[in-house]
Amino acid sequence: MSQRQTETESLFEQAYPNSRKVYVEQGDLRVPFREIELSGGEPALRVYDTTGPQGVDVREGLPALRESWIEARGDTEKGPRQHVPEEAAPEIPEGLKRDARRGSGTVTQMHYAKKGIVTPEMEFVALREGCEPEFVRDEIARGRAILPNNINHPESEPMIIGRNFKVKVNANIGNSVVTSSIEEEVDKLRWAVTWGADTVMDLSTGDDIHATREWIIRNSPVPIGTVPLYEALERVGGVPEKLNWEVFREVLIEQAEQGVDYFTIHAGVLLRFIRHTVDRIGGICSRGGSIMAKWCMSHHEESFLYTRFEEICEIMKRYDVAFSLGDGLRPGAIADANDTAQFAELKIQGELTKVAWEHDVQVMCEGPGHVPMHLIQENMDKQLDWCHEAPFYTLGPLTTDIAPGYDHITSAIGAAMIARKGTAMICYVTPKEHLGLPNKDDVKEGLIAYRIAAHAADLAKGHPNAQKWDDALSKARFEFRWNDQFNLALDPTTARAYHDETLPAEPAKVAHFCSMCGPKFCSMKISHDIREYADQLGVDEEAAVEKGMEEKAKEFRDGGGEIYVPEGR
Amino acid sequence: MSQRQTETESLFEQAYPNSRKVYVEQGDLRVPFREIELSGGEPALRVYDTTGPQGVDVREGLPALRESWIEARGDTEKGPRQHVPEEAAPEIPEGLKRDARRGSGTVTQMHYAKKGIVTPEMEFVALREGCEPEFVRDEIARGRAILPNNINHPESEPMIIGRNFKVKVNANIGNSVVTSSIEEEVDKLRWAVTWGADTVMDLSTGDDIHATREWIIRNSPVPIGTVPLYEALERVGGVPEKLNWEVFREVLIEQAEQGVDYFTIHAGVLLRFIRHTVDRIGGICSRGGSIMAKWCMSHHEESFLYTRFEEICEIMKRYDVAFSLGDGLRPGAIADANDTAQFAELKIQGELTKVAWEHDVQVMCEGPGHVPMHLIQENMDKQLDWCHEAPFYTLGPLTTDIAPGYDHITSAIGAAMIARKGTAMICYVTPKEHLGLPNKDDVKEGLIAYRIAAHAADLAKGHPNAQKWDDALSKARFEFRWNDQFNLALDPTTARAYHDETLPAEPAKVAHFCSMCGPKFCSMKISHDIREYADQLGVDEEAAVEKGMEEKAKEFRDGGGEIYVPEGR
Repeated sequence: MSQRQTETESLFEQAYPNSRKVYVEQGDLRVPFREIELSGGEPALRVYDTTGPQGVDVREGLPALRESWIEARGDTEKGPRQHVPEEAAPEIPEGLKRDARRGSGTVTQMHYAKKGIVTPEMEFVALREGCEPEFVRDEIARGRAILPNNINHPESEPMIIGRNFKVKVNANIGNSVVTSSIEEEVDKLRWAVTWGADTVMDLSTGDDIHATREWIIRNSPVPIGTVPLYEALERVGGVPEKLNWEVFREVLIEQAEQGVDYFTIHAGVLLRFIRHTVDRIGGICSRGGSIMAKWCMSHHEESFLYTRFEEICEIMKRYDVAFSLGDGLRPGAIADANDTAQFAELKIQGELTKVAWEHDVQVMCEGPGHVPMHLIQENMDKQLDWCHEAPFYTLGPLTTDIAPGYDHITSAIGAAMIARKGTAMICYVTPKEHLGLPNKDDVKEGLIAYRIAAHAADLAKGHPNAQKWDDALSKARFEFRWNDQFNLALDPTTARAYHDETLPAEPAKVAHFCSMCGPKFCSMKISHDIREYADQLGVDEEAAVEKGMEEKAKEFRDGGGEIYVPEGR
Repeated sequence: MSQRQTETESLFEQAYPNSRKVYVEQGDLRVPFREIELSGGEPALRVYDTTGPQGVDVREGLPALRESWIEARGDTEKGPRQHVPEEAAPEIPEGLKRDARRGSGTVTQMHYAKKGIVTPEMEFVALREGCEPEFVRDEIARGRAILPNNINHPESEPMIIGRNFKVKVNANIGNSVVTSSIEEEVDKLRWAVTWGADTVMDLSTGDDIHATREWIIRNSPVPIGTVPLYEALERVGGVPEKLNWEVFREVLIEQAEQGVDYFTIHAGVLLRFIRHTVDRIGGICSRGGSIMAKWCMSHHEESFLYTRFEEICEIMKRYDVAFSLGDGLRPGAIADANDTAQFAELKIQGELTKVAWEHDVQVMCEGPGHVPMHLIQENMDKQLDWCHEAPFYTLGPLTTDIAPGYDHITSAIGAAMIARKGTAMICYVTPKEHLGLPNKDDVKEGLIAYRIAAHAADLAKGHPNAQKWDDALSKARFEFRWNDQFNLALDPTTARAYHDETLPAEPAKVAHFCSMCGPKFCSMKISHDIREYADQLGVDEEAAVEKGMEEKAKEFRDGGGEIYVPEGR
């Protein structure tokens, strides 16, 4: 066993003491959950798990979980890849090299769903979410949910993005010209899924862009998204005006063959919309949006993303790559929220959604960005209406601009609110947003903030599994089961470390008081006393007391007063 | 100048580089603001400032800003304090010792407001908030806002809590049996006001409770709140059943003489409500609530807080101590939100509000707690209705229980939402909530999270000064004025440190690209190019382009399609 293997194994164990991976099995399917063992006779709690297989050598990649299901459908063929950049090959170990699979026709989950076929992927998702496979199929067929899983990424564990399912969280990673290496990015990927990323976007823009992505996809148990435009821009020397359909098409196929599960495509940036960004405070904050805007201005025509949209669909449907229709004109400042440019693009996103659906390509729509609280609802309403209920995937939104360094918080507020209203996936923002590239600590901070937002939304939406978790933790807290409280936390080790700071000794973990009030003032200790006392009184006496109080209250009300005031005062 | 003085001076400077304290003067009044100096010809930005006078020796206390205004009203008299615990005296330096002032009649701001008098305190607040003094008076007279400032705390800078003003943030400090010292608590106070606490609650429960409070009040530029019950409980040996009106009354007078600005009084915990907490997951999570519940159960009668409520008013109105009507039965778990016990108490809070108003005593009402997002609105609606629009003052609420260690985030989400709906002050929650006592870092983390929540709410409510700050920062960001962006941040040093991690060199602070994308992919750089390009084109040509596009779009629509698809594809 290599050292890397040991590290991978211990990542889950280090993050989640007293948790173990369990699998719900049904036929061929083995659906992962994390089971948190509890004390005091409480049943173990099973929670959704994104951590993926443990103990795998990153130079070999994860096992191809979905390979046999894809093979069994008999609608794909395998062969050598069409495009592998020369310089990438030496950076990719033999153990990660794969042939490419390509559909002989349309091989998307939407295609099967519309035909009434429940795929193993859909069954997997149904077990994972706790619903019926037929419901999953129907949501995908209607376009209200997507199941992003490229046939060239058989390592991924199927998951679903749609507003009638658990709210999902995306984490962005990726190197840039300025910093970081392949190893660091693979570490960030593993770190991100350990802390609950449901999908990961690789936004690399620097060197080794192809090789970095290969490492990431082969080791990712969650769907991987990219912005193909970034790689296309590298190929034309970083000059937006030089971008063209041929280069872009090549990149799309290359990435589809590698196994990217969804592409952000900024096809809604139209020439006539650009003028509406000129008087903004924040201009165009989207990288992809600004690149395409510059292209459109320079060429004085609509972009190839828009004019070749159906050709893009033709490519994507043969690999089951989903669209994440980019919001290139999203607001980059509070003052620019919900403006003409933003909503003009959203309408086009809606039109393109329908075009993609005609090709049975799965679609989600990206959304903002920087939006004050009172303008959030309008974003959701318009997206549902104009984009025909395709899943919404927002970046935050950030609810104020005054806190760089804390934008995981400014945006967790907006993310929770918009997720509650129906956004299906929220893209995390780390504390480094606007300031620098996130390191591993930032990735974790961003993920915890966003899992809080997602879970708060699930609770508010009444997701069947959500409140069980809160109740288990609340109960552990009230019963002074300190270790259970830590283990049930989103981040058990941090919770325990904070408790240790005040009361480090092990007996404090079973003490019937907490570190805030000490034994004398402990409200929970007193609550227990009250409960015992009430038990002694018995229900009858309690009822008698209440009756007595009611009589007094009646006397008081009859007397014309508003509160009960005893005599003699 | 002592070392402490130097420290105090540098606290403001360390926290806010390129900011200076300025004063808006009008007659006697000098109202503080923080002015952030900007580059690039931008005007300096003035923001609300809670940091208080700098460079003051903590053994002498702050200057008595309001003394002459109080004196001038001629309705108070000064004399030795009635109650000073023997053991406290040696802990209080000579420089902090004060006589007590007592009103010969009612001396509350509400009393003056109802009589149509605009006090200097109200004028100060009007300048601070940017509104008319008459509006301030009217809001206080209606009970819709409070101006908490005990006549024995003349050091405080007047501030207002009400939903038509800037949303305020409270920070809790206080030692406990388990940990901490007087010096640490005074340091936390200064730290808290530096990071924007609008009021501070001293929740000390350990030894030196009187002396700690004296140090805190004498050095606090913001109103100080307490829960007098905690000190009363200490006096009866920590046994709730032994509490009685005489001890409680003594504590009230002692604290009123010291200068406490508002008292949390859990008078709404009635005997008949307690049974409704027995089947809760979280029992009674409020310390005060659980103490009073135990008292009521043991004595089988209503508490002296309720039965002696008018006597409490009689005491408070002679010092202008405001009520913070405690929510002793607030939910301590998501499962318990908005339950019978909670709302039964809220109704009593409303009844007691009216009683206090009859005595011209200012009132705010405390609110929860642990509330999932979909149940937040009901809390605000019922409080406005049942409590006659008295200011609401909530603890969070926490929107999920599953993230101990991150409850500043779980609760900032709820706090922003409820503040947007009209909550006037939000009580911070630190990352240590449920786990331990906050240290200085935690105090800062909690405050930043809550100032984000408060500001996001101000923005959404359309507070006139709120968006100026966002716009100044957004503009600095777009124009690559990096140092301005840092200095405009809620926490400038952290913002700068994060940028330094990726691009430490000083030239990077004027670079026209950022540390995330590097120079080639910078969307903002491209936005600037687009703006220039658009300028070159001129408006006429832009209009022509638009016209051309519209014609094409019309052709397309006439053709029956939904998107524009050029020929030849």
